Amino acid sequence: MSAYDDQNIFAKILRGEIPATKVFEDDETLCFMDIMPRADGHCLVIPKTPCRNLLDASPAQLAACMATANRVAKAAMTGLSAEGITLQQFSEDAGGQEVYHLHFHILPRHAGVALRPPGKMGDMDEIKAIAERIRGAL
Amino acid sequence: MSAYDDQNIFAKILRGEIPATKVFEDDETLCFMDIMPRADGHCLVIPKTPCRNLLDASPAQLAACMATANRVAKAAMTGLSAEGITLQQFSEDAGGQEVYHLHFHILPRHAGVALRPPGKMGDMDEIKAIAERIRGAL
Repeated sequence: MSAYDDQNIFAKILRGEIPATKVFEDDETLCFMDIMPRADGHCLVIPKTPCRNLLDASPAQLAACMATANRVAKAAMTGLSAEGITLQQFSEDAGGQEVYHLHFHILPRHAGVALRPPGKMGDMDEIKAIAERIRGAL
Repeated sequence: MSAYDDQNIFAKILRGEIPATKVFEDDETLCFMDIMPRADGHCLVIPKTPCRNLLDASPAQLAACMATANRVAKAAMTGLSAEGITLQQFSEDAGGQEVYHLHFHILPRHAGVALRPPGKMGDMDEIKAIAERIRGAL
């Protein structure tokens, strides 16, 4: 497995070098909106400290991310009237990973609504409005 | 959200009422093979204490599951010469959940090999042989 590369886009978001629509943060984690949402409310939870993915993450990094995932998932259920949550995490290229900073996808779901295909940019005004609804339920 | 139902099949596995091919266990978690594997080495990590899914899980349950997921994922990479890991967790029916005891799917991946469709029983001898390879790398 390759070493952590601090030029990945999530490291840049953490350093404030590129913008993100933040949903929640604490000392150890950040949650922000995915700009290619596969569902309304699709957001990402990442640790603030470097690691590549599940394979090199520490127990503390994983625990912190999951505590935030739990918190944001519950807020998405309430704020978006979601009926379920799909959580995904991809490690290495063969596992589906594209950005090499550990991240968990939180996908709010509604019955009968399939995930949208990956790779399509969302409408930023809509993403920001949805983020506000999740934040309001935190 | 409904209350935890202790008649779900993973609760029965935890009580030893139905068999499972175990990969790893510690005081807080159990990892066993999925009998409908979507990839070679597809296994599940569950807490030994009751909770329904991500939405009602405690930070301690989530932390314990992820520590085991990390451990098993690394063993699957080595033991199965996997090239990546896909992790999935489904909460509530709309989120894709079928068994209502929190579980994380660990899917070892190889480049260019798609996940198999869900719902197809695997060959138990093959599943047991693959479990042995993961256990051997723990």
